[in-house]
Amino acid sequence: MSTVTNGDKSIFDRRESQVRSYCRSFDTVFTKGQNATLTDVEGREYTDFLAGCSSLNYGHNDPDMKAALIEHITGDGIAHGLDMYTDTKARFLETFEKTILEPRGMDHKVMMVGPTGTNAVEASLKLARKITGRKNVIAFTNGFHGMTLGSLALTGNSGKRNGGGGVSLGDVTHLPYDGSMGDVDTLEVARTLLNNSSSGVDKPAAFIVEPVQGEGGLNAASKEWMQGIAALAKEHGALLIVDDIQSGVGRTGTFFAFEPFGIEPDMVPMAKSFSGMGLPFAALLVKPELDVWKPAEHNGTFRGNTHAFVTARVALEKFWTDDTFAKEVTEKGEVLHQRLSEMAQKIDGARLKGRGMMRGVDVGSGDLAEAICAEAFKNGLIIETSGAGDEVVKVLAPLTIPMEQFKAGLDTLAAAVDTCVQNKIAAE
Amino acid sequence: MSTVTNGDKSIFDRRESQVRSYCRSFDTVFTKGQNATLTDVEGREYTDFLAGCSSLNYGHNDPDMKAALIEHITGDGIAHGLDMYTDTKARFLETFEKTILEPRGMDHKVMMVGPTGTNAVEASLKLARKITGRKNVIAFTNGFHGMTLGSLALTGNSGKRNGGGGVSLGDVTHLPYDGSMGDVDTLEVARTLLNNSSSGVDKPAAFIVEPVQGEGGLNAASKEWMQGIAALAKEHGALLIVDDIQSGVGRTGTFFAFEPFGIEPDMVPMAKSFSGMGLPFAALLVKPELDVWKPAEHNGTFRGNTHAFVTARVALEKFWTDDTFAKEVTEKGEVLHQRLSEMAQKIDGARLKGRGMMRGVDVGSGDLAEAICAEAFKNGLIIETSGAGDEVVKVLAPLTIPMEQFKAGLDTLAAAVDTCVQNKIAAE
Amino acid sequence: MSTVTNGDKSIFDRRESQVRSYCRSFDTVFTKGQNATLTDVEGREYTDFLAGCSSLNYGHNDPDMKAALIEHITGDGIAHGLDMYTDTKARFLETFEKTILEPRGMDHKVMMVGPTGTNAVEASLKLARKITGRKNVIAFTNGFHGMTLGSLALTGNSGKRNGGGGVSLGDVTHLPYDGSMGDVDTLEVARTLLNNSSSGVDKPAAFIVEPVQGEGGLNAASKEWMQGIAALAKEHGALLIVDDIQSGVGRTGTFFAFEPFGIEPDMVPMAKSFSGMGLPFAALLVKPELDVWKPAEHNGTFRGNTHAFVTARVALEKFWTDDTFAKEVTEKGEVLHQRLSEMAQKIDGARLKGRGMMRGVDVGSGDLAEAICAEAFKNGLIIETSGAGDEVVKVLAPLTIPMEQFKAGLDTLAAAVDTCVQNKIAAE
Amino acid sequence: MSTVTNGDKSIFDRRESQVRSYCRSFDTVFTKGQNATLTDVEGREYTDFLAGCSSLNYGHNDPDMKAALIEHITGDGIAHGLDMYTDTKARFLETFEKTILEPRGMDHKVMMVGPTGTNAVEASLKLARKITGRKNVIAFTNGFHGMTLGSLALTGNSGKRNGGGGVSLGDVTHLPYDGSMGDVDTLEVARTLLNNSSSGVDKPAAFIVEPVQGEGGLNAASKEWMQGIAALAKEHGALLIVDDIQSGVGRTGTFFAFEPFGIEPDMVPMAKSFSGMGLPFAALLVKPELDVWKPAEHNGTFRGNTHAFVTARVALEKFWTDDTFAKEVTEKGEVLHQRLSEMAQKIDGARLKGRGMMRGVDVGSGDLAEAICAEAFKNGLIIETSGAGDEVVKVLAPLTIPMEQFKAGLDTLAAAVDTCVQNKIAAE
Repeated sequence: MSTVTNGDKSIFDRRESQVRSYCRSFDTVFTKGQNATLTDVEGREYTDFLAGCSSLNYGHNDPDMKAALIEHITGDGIAHGLDMYTDTKARFLETFEKTILEPRGMDHKVMMVGPTGTNAVEASLKLARKITGRKNVIAFTNGFHGMTLGSLALTGNSGKRNGGGGVSLGDVTHLPYDGSMGDVDTLEVARTLLNNSSSGVDKPAAFIVEPVQGEGGLNAASKEWMQGIAALAKEHGALLIVDDIQSGVGRTGTFFAFEPFGIEPDMVPMAKSFSGMGLPFAALLVKPELDVWKPAEHNGTFRGNTHAFVTARVALEKFWTDDTFAKEVTEKGEVLHQRLSEMAQKIDGARLKGRGMMRGVDVGSGDLAEAICAEAFKNGLIIETSGAGDEVVKVLAPLTIPMEQFKAGLDTLAAAVDTCVQNKIAAE
Repeated sequence: MSTVTNGDKSIFDRRESQVRSYCRSFDTVFTKGQNATLTDVEGREYTDFLAGCSSLNYGHNDPDMKAALIEHITGDGIAHGLDMYTDTKARFLETFEKTILEPRGMDHKVMMVGPTGTNAVEASLKLARKITGRKNVIAFTNGFHGMTLGSLALTGNSGKRNGGGGVSLGDVTHLPYDGSMGDVDTLEVARTLLNNSSSGVDKPAAFIVEPVQGEGGLNAASKEWMQGIAALAKEHGALLIVDDIQSGVGRTGTFFAFEPFGIEPDMVPMAKSFSGMGLPFAALLVKPELDVWKPAEHNGTFRGNTHAFVTARVALEKFWTDDTFAKEVTEKGEVLHQRLSEMAQKIDGARLKGRGMMRGVDVGSGDLAEAICAEAFKNGLIIETSGAGDEVVKVLAPLTIPMEQFKAGLDTLAAAVDTCVQNKIAAE
Repeated sequence: MSTVTNGDKSIFDRRESQVRSYCRSFDTVFTKGQNATLTDVEGREYTDFLAGCSSLNYGHNDPDMKAALIEHITGDGIAHGLDMYTDTKARFLETFEKTILEPRGMDHKVMMVGPTGTNAVEASLKLARKITGRKNVIAFTNGFHGMTLGSLALTGNSGKRNGGGGVSLGDVTHLPYDGSMGDVDTLEVARTLLNNSSSGVDKPAAFIVEPVQGEGGLNAASKEWMQGIAALAKEHGALLIVDDIQSGVGRTGTFFAFEPFGIEPDMVPMAKSFSGMGLPFAALLVKPELDVWKPAEHNGTFRGNTHAFVTARVALEKFWTDDTFAKEVTEKGEVLHQRLSEMAQKIDGARLKGRGMMRGVDVGSGDLAEAICAEAFKNGLIIETSGAGDEVVKVLAPLTIPMEQFKAGLDTLAAAVDTCVQNKIAAE
Repeated sequence: MSTVTNGDKSIFDRRESQVRSYCRSFDTVFTKGQNATLTDVEGREYTDFLAGCSSLNYGHNDPDMKAALIEHITGDGIAHGLDMYTDTKARFLETFEKTILEPRGMDHKVMMVGPTGTNAVEASLKLARKITGRKNVIAFTNGFHGMTLGSLALTGNSGKRNGGGGVSLGDVTHLPYDGSMGDVDTLEVARTLLNNSSSGVDKPAAFIVEPVQGEGGLNAASKEWMQGIAALAKEHGALLIVDDIQSGVGRTGTFFAFEPFGIEPDMVPMAKSFSGMGLPFAALLVKPELDVWKPAEHNGTFRGNTHAFVTARVALEKFWTDDTFAKEVTEKGEVLHQRLSEMAQKIDGARLKGRGMMRGVDVGSGDLAEAICAEAFKNGLIIETSGAGDEVVKVLAPLTIPMEQFKAGLDTLAAAVDTCVQNKIAAE
């Protein structure tokens, strides 16, 4: 057995890169996960309000996914099959077609890409540029789309951008996201720049936008704004890429976060919770008329994680064949909204952020947000911040969390808010 | 069950992107894998000489890895833990340290990156540029390092490069790989360009090189050349990145393909067979003094696939605690060399390529190579081509393939060569 | 003598590139220029309201400049001296120091650059990036800064941008110029994007801005806006480059167009009328603490046109030793404003543009503006359009034009407006 | 009068940028130039072996050019005419057609560009990329093509490249120039890289090459090599741009330096001596089928310096209507070769460089070369170094220099060589 079972974590310092991050907020060694509960090496239990940054929307180790995966492995089902045909992939695609695409009138094709969100985003960029013959891509302030070079150019965060040592992050124009400029109508800003042939903003290959910005601070775009962006893209012959990696798979109450907006994205990068069980898996949904790459024009070794096909299929069968699950999520989202509103009232200048089960409170400073999360962790709650200055306390609980545990977790959070607000007042 | 069990593959045409590729050479639906044998939906068995492009060096579904993984899942072990501490990660790191790093005198740290080779390569580029304050990276002709924007700039293949629609693939200088210019001393070419302050080749942040070029046509660099490149990098203050993604994990007979060269790479991107069982997993090995990123300066959701930690650890324990396995691989590599030599003698102008269990024959034309692979597939052998013009018939059998099955597979290949050579002669 | 004296212009079609442009609006062969009057090969006289796009602010062939230049040539004064010391350069520098820099409290140094505006702009970009270690430069919509690769990236016009065949025009962020977004406060847009560390707009090396945008449609920035931009640059550690190439040398009534704004640019690219007589000449004014390049770190063959030193010095001595000339320009600018206002009233939706002797009328459509200019040319007036859609009739008369000739030219223009407006009404 | 006439040079320190360079080698103030003789403010005469870096191939102030220019100015001929038609331009074009183009069977069109070499080069790059739809341009080691961003990317010198503060100089591949790699066949290097579709060297829009590299160290390409490059360009659908800016206008004995090679460049950037008298002037010669830009798609204020049209025409009429001048240049080139050979024999390891009247000696070190030039200057000879390490003593005398003065200058140079070699020996 590992030495960590004796409380010795030196192996991480000795052999894991310093770039590791989440372990610094949650400084213990985890051993087990069951739905919304994590257990550490000392047997202590935690409620998980981070959910793998929305990669575990169905919680840890769903029993049905587990069972199907164990059965697959036991029977020597393919573990790695490059992009060859497998029965497992066929069953996943058939279920995705029937459960998700057809009911929503979507004719998209599924492009298997390397199993990370940034791979899906990179594929979308390359394809959009190839199709349109244009290079510029419109991204939005506070957007996050990944850390490989193409995606990093789309990403707003200066700390992330500077990690690459100053290589130019080109062929991208960053425009203000909905609500990011106070009273200024950001749609009008975009419109004016694009309609002016001397603006210096080159005709874009695509717009890429998150319906709710996860890393950027739980900024939720309005229906009007998203429709305006979709119309603007169309008007200028640009493709609309809706990055639903963090906001998708039920997080906001519908399978795709863009569903309530009545827009038709040309491409949809998916990842995070798409595998159902937190296994690495990503795909790019592409309108069939845009599916123009020749075989292998874009490729990669791990496209189509076969184990993930198994669990992703089970997730779709279990949660998306009727609207029971969606209704539950919506209901939990309302509870979340209510409780966060109460907390926000206790913090001067606090603002509610987000949508559905992807909500948080902008508490005005990164220091306060961090203090609240640290206090909550002391009391068994795993929760993180987001936003440009880490100023948003972000709740990303599993959508499957039992209501009682959810409320208890929110009680823990509320107590942490109280403690930190009092500490802050005392310090002033 | 899926319709494909009834022989209906229409779901793939209907819903999977046209960019899929390997399925086109091997047009059947696979259901099971055991060591070097794949089984399709009709119960037909195939010998796998492709091994997930060297992602399945230990074959399909190794029983010990299976058992450990099933135990992990059954016990609700963490499936997805972001980059938090887990007992599973600790055990993997401890085993990797003891089994691989310490015996080789390597003090590298392990950076968990997104679970694809290109993520590891992108991380190495960003880090090298940040550390040196330089932008240019030296890559080599026929190199392949991935398909995301940063890695694609390093990749030689024009078809892949053009997939992105013409975005500039900058900040890279492509120099000739060992042996790629006939009699010209390619090391001298590199040296002259770098030593001339007016060459226009900017001082590099790094050299990135594969010990054996897998996609590029199984080109194997000599010891002298690799040492020369390592010395040149050092002389010019550049870091040496050895991309051992395809050639590593025992493929050439040692754990790392660069071991026989007596060089000390600054960074080593690992992926493909690193997880042992074909699960998506990648890491960047980094010398400790280069481990300078702040927490989260580079990040990603799926860094550190916990299931892969389990299987990777078992693989290290099972195959790398003594030299039994390495000797077997070397022995099989000699058999392979012998049999390919015999085949090459039957083809005008054919050349042997590669090293260890990563060998092939350049048959002079892509058409002939493709015909041979297609003929072999008819007879139950899964085998692919590589090289700029797909002119190399490439053998990447699992290293664990039983000798008898290996020889039978080579018989099948030899027969395919005979048939195709005769067909070609007949057609002329 | 040339065949053109016989009306044969075929040599131009035969041997001059089709990219030539102004000759297409003014399809005759010119032979002589005297102040505001041009004479063509048939002896016809034209009033020049274009003035070499503001390169002839002192008119054609000023007699004092002519005399000095002829004396210089006659005496075998240096015609080309690279950047060696000459008495001619010394006299120019001494005069520029005494006449322009000292009275304005400017301690700038004069960097001789290649004799075109774009050379001065390219030098400013390179220097700003070197000094700050940053790459991004903020430019503004409808800006024009030149056609070489670095300057083209700053330029807004899409037709110009596309001339380069799609090479990336990177490391520039284009923000909205004053007044370019209707009611939207464009300074606030700039401020919000720069103050948000996750906006994706990288910290800039410099802001580059024209006080009045010549090619962009005679957009004149307000004092408040220019001061706001200057403050924003300072706040973010960016240099302020004020491109006074077209708007400088008295065009708006002061030597530099930025004088009324009370700002202190770090660098000022100068060209066009800087030589006084229309000879190719450009320079970059640089604050002494920014004059950090080593000898020859930026160079060029024609830096410091010696003939231009002669004429530029005479221009400074003649026009800028007291405020007589500046007052005349201001007065003429008021006449121009008055007359253009009258014309604008006759055109539905017309808007007055510009400042000083750099004014025009946005007539709402490129077709109408072109028709007006063509009609004016028929009646002996040389005048051009500007703006993204060529929708602005632009008056750039020599500042030295006799008042009577100026008013007669404005009469011609007013008549052309009347004619074209009536034609337009008739056509509707 | 200027204070410099009293020996006070403080104005330069006070007001001219430190980036100035030639004045540092020749630290006196020049006042007059006549053919190959410069006179300084103290009346001292110098023989000019620098000739404005080959911008004064016909010497200073040729009396016929002077006379024509004075006549033009006196008669109020156009000084600045944008790109409008003038009689002066017509006469120049007619003379260039008759004297240069037609006798050489060239059907090129003349594109007037901004009056510096780098403007012509930038225009050629933009046009080549637009025509081919490709971005990559092949340039050669030790090449120099200018300092604006597009041209700088082509330039080899690292000092120049670094002047821009690290902006990426992309879309260019630098290949080894003829003779730059000892025994390695550099044409074979180019061929192998371009013929390998996986080399990572993207299909080029153009090759740009100097027949003799002036700044790069007077490297003269062989006929075979230039023909090989021309053939390679053609084979790969790339345009051939021959940069004859420094080597053209008779410098090597023919009007164009590429004439002896029997190649047909697609584009030829011209500048430096093209105006005849050292006035700023540049043009791009373009094959008619490549003259595809729309009017103003590339533009600039000072395209077509009218004063230069006058002097350039006189130069063509005076020197190129028969072969007298060319023969004289060839003869002088042989004298030069003979004398430099004698000098080279006195220096260990010295190598002769160049061709025609563009020759020098690589003396093995920049220090020695600089010492020789400084010693020569003490004795009234203006001469400079070139090469990556400034190791080449470079003779660029006016082609019109009287033979006696030429030989006397060479005597001065030979004496400087003797002195410096003896000093060096003494110091060792």
